[in-house]
Amino acid sequence: MFDAKNPQRTPISDLGEFGLIGHLTQATKLKHAHTALGVGDDAALIDVGTHYQAVSTDLLVEGVHFDLSYMPLKHLGYKSVIVNLSDIYAMNGTPEHITVGLAVSNRFPVEALEEIYEGIHLACERYNVDLVGGDTTASKSGLMISVTVVGRVEKERVAKRSGAKDNDLIVVSGDLGGAYMGLQILEREKQVYLENPDMQPELGGHEYILERQLKPEARKDVVEILKALDIQPTSMIDISDGLSSETLHLSNTGQMQYNLYESKIPIDPSIYALCEEFNLNTTTVALNGGEDYELLFTVPIEDHDKVKTNPNLTVIGYVKEGSGANLITRDDKVIGLKAQGFNHHEAE
Amino acid sequence: MFDAKNPQRTPISDLGEFGLIGHLTQATKLKHAHTALGVGDDAALIDVGTHYQAVSTDLLVEGVHFDLSYMPLKHLGYKSVIVNLSDIYAMNGTPEHITVGLAVSNRFPVEALEEIYEGIHLACERYNVDLVGGDTTASKSGLMISVTVVGRVEKERVAKRSGAKDNDLIVVSGDLGGAYMGLQILEREKQVYLENPDMQPELGGHEYILERQLKPEARKDVVEILKALDIQPTSMIDISDGLSSETLHLSNTGQMQYNLYESKIPIDPSIYALCEEFNLNTTTVALNGGEDYELLFTVPIEDHDKVKTNPNLTVIGYVKEGSGANLITRDDKVIGLKAQGFNHHEAE
Repeated sequence: MFDAKNPQRTPISDLGEFGLIGHLTQATKLKHAHTALGVGDDAALIDVGTHYQAVSTDLLVEGVHFDLSYMPLKHLGYKSVIVNLSDIYAMNGTPEHITVGLAVSNRFPVEALEEIYEGIHLACERYNVDLVGGDTTASKSGLMISVTVVGRVEKERVAKRSGAKDNDLIVVSGDLGGAYMGLQILEREKQVYLENPDMQPELGGHEYILERQLKPEARKDVVEILKALDIQPTSMIDISDGLSSETLHLSNTGQMQYNLYESKIPIDPSIYALCEEFNLNTTTVALNGGEDYELLFTVPIEDHDKVKTNPNLTVIGYVKEGSGANLITRDDKVIGLKAQGFNHHEAE
Repeated sequence: MFDAKNPQRTPISDLGEFGLIGHLTQATKLKHAHTALGVGDDAALIDVGTHYQAVSTDLLVEGVHFDLSYMPLKHLGYKSVIVNLSDIYAMNGTPEHITVGLAVSNRFPVEALEEIYEGIHLACERYNVDLVGGDTTASKSGLMISVTVVGRVEKERVAKRSGAKDNDLIVVSGDLGGAYMGLQILEREKQVYLENPDMQPELGGHEYILERQLKPEARKDVVEILKALDIQPTSMIDISDGLSSETLHLSNTGQMQYNLYESKIPIDPSIYALCEEFNLNTTTVALNGGEDYELLFTVPIEDHDKVKTNPNLTVIGYVKEGSGANLITRDDKVIGLKAQGFNHHEAE
């Protein structure tokens, strides 16, 4: 009412999520010498002398990140913690503290918030994290959870997004695409339910992928395995947006080219049949599905033997000097990766 | 769609904001020995060896904490940082790092976010704070800002909400009620505008209180003054919800009774005339107005001379053994303080 409106109106979609954050924070000037790492990695790093403290914030917004018609509130609370812890593991660190901000409309009773907090407490318990603060407030509509995690990273163990060297191996934990296929099942059953509320949802047999979507875990164990195997990752990121997008994040940090073998991408056997049912390409699902919260990292080629014998880890490609990120298909075509999907043109 | 709904539905309003946070976090078990302070103070404290790191999160939600019809976006960005910094000063510490979570609906163009970030960067510049991370996401409706601040607190300087001793003096910085009266002016002019959009809002002469509401400052200077005067506060809190509510927070931590003199509460001269115009009681406004972001603290009685000569500080009462919090009125009546307003019955 009091100010002249800015005449220019650029839709946020013009920049995309990552372009937007980069654009908004480009004016940032770091003033403290002990700010070891600012915006642009999985977590910021503060040098507190003996070690780094890593800090990261993630928001989960109703209707954008979750759908309460099939997301139980307890799982939502659990997942809101997990996605944040994953950011600290992606620095090769140990999450230790969280704060939780909760904005809720008055359609939620106290009992709903209790369920959310049950999930939050359970995640804290399992991952040995202390809930130390927060803010709970009203919202005009919907539910929003903002979690900030603080963790400890040993200086000699830190793994940033940058740092990969020529000939490094690209490694991923667990398997990919499950969370996305879980979402497909839930969306399908939701449509069935909306069309006929008397129908019971058919979820049997899909336990693994439903859990990947509704109650994901963060790879605490992988950080421990790397330490036990005496492997220092040269770079690392967690897979929240899909293998393709995260590989590009890694490649965008430096002078290296990332090459993934389609045939090596770990995919749970149950995904293949489901992809056929949904008429989806398995590789596309694994590349772009997202929300798997696995860790993607690079290691020196000397560590090959240590990695290959571990059932939690899969070597999926290699780094060489250059730029960009490619998929080497089963029939040996080289395809340039894109953040959302891959384009079927021959790269280079 | 898949789970039996919890049959019990307690409205959130039954518990109130502070009751709710306490209720939801009561199951919290702290697992780390270096978690020096958890939920329940202005910030949590993590012991990192040489010092504490203080962490605090606050949310600002459109339609609840701000009204964009009179809140310029740049000021909103500025204020969202300030309210968080204030929590670290309230621990007698120095904020150094923030992360920002922003949820925006697609009615906001990129230029709107740029204005918010201009305010965020300006606050970082003025308060010597590094923006180190964040998350920007879509929302279904409205704007929400979640800021987390991390700061440094010297172990020998920390001031918690608890700790006041018998005979301590109660001290407040600056003056109170300005932010609330600024809000009254803005709300009045908004009504005028809604009834007749051709009318220009009459804001002249109200610069001080409008700035208190739209672009508050955090009391960095007070923390510096206390250090320069060699005063160690025995307890401290910042005034976000009003003097009455914050005094009760302090008194609820221990075995002490807090007594405030009505005649000593610092109020800007401009407030008196305005309160008459709005038919409001000046003391009520100062006690319950909130959003002044002044610091409320206790000091040993030996520091009286140091405090009384400083123009930024006012002694407004004293602590004695007992419980609760009282206002001693101009005509020497003793009235029990309530979180929202004070009841006109004689306490004790």
